[in-house]
Amino acid sequence: MSVTIARRSITRMPDRTDAARVPDELAVEAPLILAMDGDAIATLMRTPGHDLELAAGWLVVESGVHRAEDVVRLRECRDDDTDRVHITLADDVRPPRPRAFVTSAACGVCSADVLDLALLRPAEPHRDGWTVSHGVLSGLPAAMRQQQRCFQRTGAVHAAALARADGSVVTVREDIGRHNAVDKIVGRALFDDMLPATDLLLVVSGRVSFEIVQKAVAAGVAGIVAVSAPSSLAVDLAREYDLLLAGMVRTGQLNVYAGEALVR
Amino acid sequence: MSVTIARRSITRMPDRTDAARVPDELAVEAPLILAMDGDAIATLMRTPGHDLELAAGWLVVESGVHRAEDVVRLRECRDDDTDRVHITLADDVRPPRPRAFVTSAACGVCSADVLDLALLRPAEPHRDGWTVSHGVLSGLPAAMRQQQRCFQRTGAVHAAALARADGSVVTVREDIGRHNAVDKIVGRALFDDMLPATDLLLVVSGRVSFEIVQKAVAAGVAGIVAVSAPSSLAVDLAREYDLLLAGMVRTGQLNVYAGEALVR
Repeated sequence: MSVTIARRSITRMPDRTDAARVPDELAVEAPLILAMDGDAIATLMRTPGHDLELAAGWLVVESGVHRAEDVVRLRECRDDDTDRVHITLADDVRPPRPRAFVTSAACGVCSADVLDLALLRPAEPHRDGWTVSHGVLSGLPAAMRQQQRCFQRTGAVHAAALARADGSVVTVREDIGRHNAVDKIVGRALFDDMLPATDLLLVVSGRVSFEIVQKAVAAGVAGIVAVSAPSSLAVDLAREYDLLLAGMVRTGQLNVYAGEALVR
Repeated sequence: MSVTIARRSITRMPDRTDAARVPDELAVEAPLILAMDGDAIATLMRTPGHDLELAAGWLVVESGVHRAEDVVRLRECRDDDTDRVHITLADDVRPPRPRAFVTSAACGVCSADVLDLALLRPAEPHRDGWTVSHGVLSGLPAAMRQQQRCFQRTGAVHAAALARADGSVVTVREDIGRHNAVDKIVGRALFDDMLPATDLLLVVSGRVSFEIVQKAVAAGVAGIVAVSAPSSLAVDLAREYDLLLAGMVRTGQLNVYAGEALVR
């Protein structure tokens, strides 16, 4: 069982005179090294748990992995006090390309050569006639929140979920990095042979930046539902790749930034 | 003048029957390529504006730049529709080390070999006897918010500020990436010969992960004040490096995770 919550003794000071030393629960953040042929190819700062899903989902964007068979083996180990996942890809799968420093807003996966998302796209995001109701869209963040157990205790982790247009939630994952939460969801879908995730929706607890749309395109979902606002680039990409993009989904508020014809 | 806010026509659907096509303002997200000797060494997804500060602040962590003279030249240009900053470092400054894929929660700058923060640390974070009052700490997020102009319009950008223990705010910067907002603040301080930022506080609008503490150590600030919660690793590092770390700073709430002896 992975440790996702750590206890620390902290000082609560609601006002100047009322300080109290109390135990507190914090979201764990720790490095996970991804290795291939013995070499570290990535260090992800993540909340431990579902590390194989995280590695697999990361590969879906970084290596163009589309099917569970593309990943021959994922092996977990712990070395020098650091968690590692050793990756073996099928021979015909492009290995991840080291890209020097790469830093993105929502994090990590962006560089000029990845901006050609067409290479990543596995299929059309939805079948002809697919729609989702306004009621389902507006209820998805709350449905996800009910399963955000680490968030309820720490207030410090993001979540992502995969959901159906009938409002049912397939999987929820949490992580201190919202990109990691999405990778875990996508990795789980890979293991369950659910990729491309045609007609499914990716729900995210935060904002939507370029990189979240990139992951959505690679996973093949029909759309993204977010609690907060998207960036300009996120909107432009969602429009270009025919994704539904709903944001600011809160009580009495719902904006559709792309794909409004898909909302009934 | 950089374009930080983009207009898009979106559909507001507060309920199912009440859809309206309206103009909306979105935070711009666009790539900035950092180049050295003609080679791209990093691609940052950022909100345009203060790009030289962003590049300089990024170098403070990535190259161990401590003084303005360490950076011989920063030159902005736009090529193939992408903004670039060309960097020339002084001969005795270690160049940034390409580190393959590197993905962190708050984003980007983490790998095993950077965990040795002692190399980054320029000085003691505060002078003997330095303290900050509870009142100043609890008021800093609101003081910063008054200057978060892009956030007020888009709701989609983070902010960082440098502040003094008397509560005065030195600089505020906004960016879709909270790590970028911190880099811009640190870059500004570098240009103003304010590094190491001894006795100053770094204020951030979001959560505190490892990487924000890493940047705080490299900048030499006395502490971090955050609106949200820190990760376990952030708390551990702040304690190890003698930083004040205050979080969940909201009305009637203030937690001190590290350095409580510095709060009066």
